Amino acid sequence: MSEHISSAYDRDLEEIQALVMRMGGLVEQSILSAADALAARDLELAEQVRAADKAIDTLELQINDEAARTIALRAPVSKDLRSILTVLRIAASLERIGDYAKNMAKRTGTLVDMPPINGSDKALRRMAREVQLMLKDVLDAYVRGDAELAEEVRQRDHEVDQMYNALFREFLTFMMEDPRNITACMHLHFMAKNVERMGDLTTNMAEQVIYQVTGSMPEEARPKGDKTSFVRTPE
Amino acid sequence: MSEHISSAYDRDLEEIQALVMRMGGLVEQSILSAADALAARDLELAEQVRAADKAIDTLELQINDEAARTIALRAPVSKDLRSILTVLRIAASLERIGDYAKNMAKRTGTLVDMPPINGSDKALRRMAREVQLMLKDVLDAYVRGDAELAEEVRQRDHEVDQMYNALFREFLTFMMEDPRNITACMHLHFMAKNVERMGDLTTNMAEQVIYQVTGSMPEEARPKGDKTSFVRTPE
Repeated sequence: MSEHISSAYDRDLEEIQALVMRMGGLVEQSILSAADALAARDLELAEQVRAADKAIDTLELQINDEAARTIALRAPVSKDLRSILTVLRIAASLERIGDYAKNMAKRTGTLVDMPPINGSDKALRRMAREVQLMLKDVLDAYVRGDAELAEEVRQRDHEVDQMYNALFREFLTFMMEDPRNITACMHLHFMAKNVERMGDLTTNMAEQVIYQVTGSMPEEARPKGDKTSFVRTPE
Repeated sequence: MSEHISSAYDRDLEEIQALVMRMGGLVEQSILSAADALAARDLELAEQVRAADKAIDTLELQINDEAARTIALRAPVSKDLRSILTVLRIAASLERIGDYAKNMAKRTGTLVDMPPINGSDKALRRMAREVQLMLKDVLDAYVRGDAELAEEVRQRDHEVDQMYNALFREFLTFMMEDPRNITACMHLHFMAKNVERMGDLTTNMAEQVIYQVTGSMPEEARPKGDKTSFVRTPE
């Protein structure tokens, strides 16, 4: 945004972006905490994730209000208008990622009494860590207006999808091996799907950043990574 | 919107709302077709749902462009600005519902070769039908500015959640009874979760309508219906 001479609009936008970054920081923390709470069966940490989700929701409402106020007051056009509309989309994606973290935390309380499923907590933690790093980078790309970094994040979602595909097959196998695993695997599988969806949302954010910086959506289609819709039998 | 003297802004908004209604009609159709394709194991119909999703996505982009153009050109404030920002959110929700319908359609191809699970196709069809009717009503509430109807839709989501809760338990039971049901039940369960999420999104739309009409979000918290995060063992 260096080509601009600083204006009232720029100051408004910077203030809103500061709120987005604060929101992003909370969401990053929630992703990791949700996975940690599961791995340690830590109900207090799970409760913190649920409380953080309220703060995240409040920030989104605040961002929406500030953005509407800025549009009404400054009547931005072209690139400035695009920037403010992008803020709304980024905040909406962050809110949804926070929701998925909250959903993971809710299931942790249920899983406490169930037998752990061989290595799946760690695998979920790795997935969550990967998504949190993607989110961190996409937020950096957003404030810096760095389309290249956003494109890199977009490509990385493929790895998250592959981790999810592997887990899906593992859960099917564990369920078939022992029916007593079925309920736990259903919940764990939902958590894995939540993390996979977080990766998708982070990818959407990367595409929004690319759109804001370059003025057009990325052309090259992203390889579709979640192939589990087509899984027939576990290998 | 009758208190307005028709203005250039009003005409723009009406044109955009016409696009939203066209988008909504396609999404309603996709919800039903996705459920019908499953019940009849009709791969051609499933393919139509996937094709419709492309048209739905294109309409969302068009709505976003038109809304941005209207904001830039007419510099709306207060209630007018709120209306145009609501259009963006309604279109975003419709796009996501269309995505869930597409996801259902994708799994139909996989389920073709698997044994049908006792009554679950019909139960899913009933859920889908309920959500489609909710969506129809919320779109009516939107064009008419009818907050009362929107509130009624919002309350009905509870029924969809209860249908989902019942299906979740049934699928767990079927999986435990016979491991050969596990893969099919996992896919069917995802489809049920997709429909449940469509209901949530329709409820969000209802809240947006209430916000646009009354200027504030509904106060009374909606009863949280999906209790399956807490399911330990099937009854």
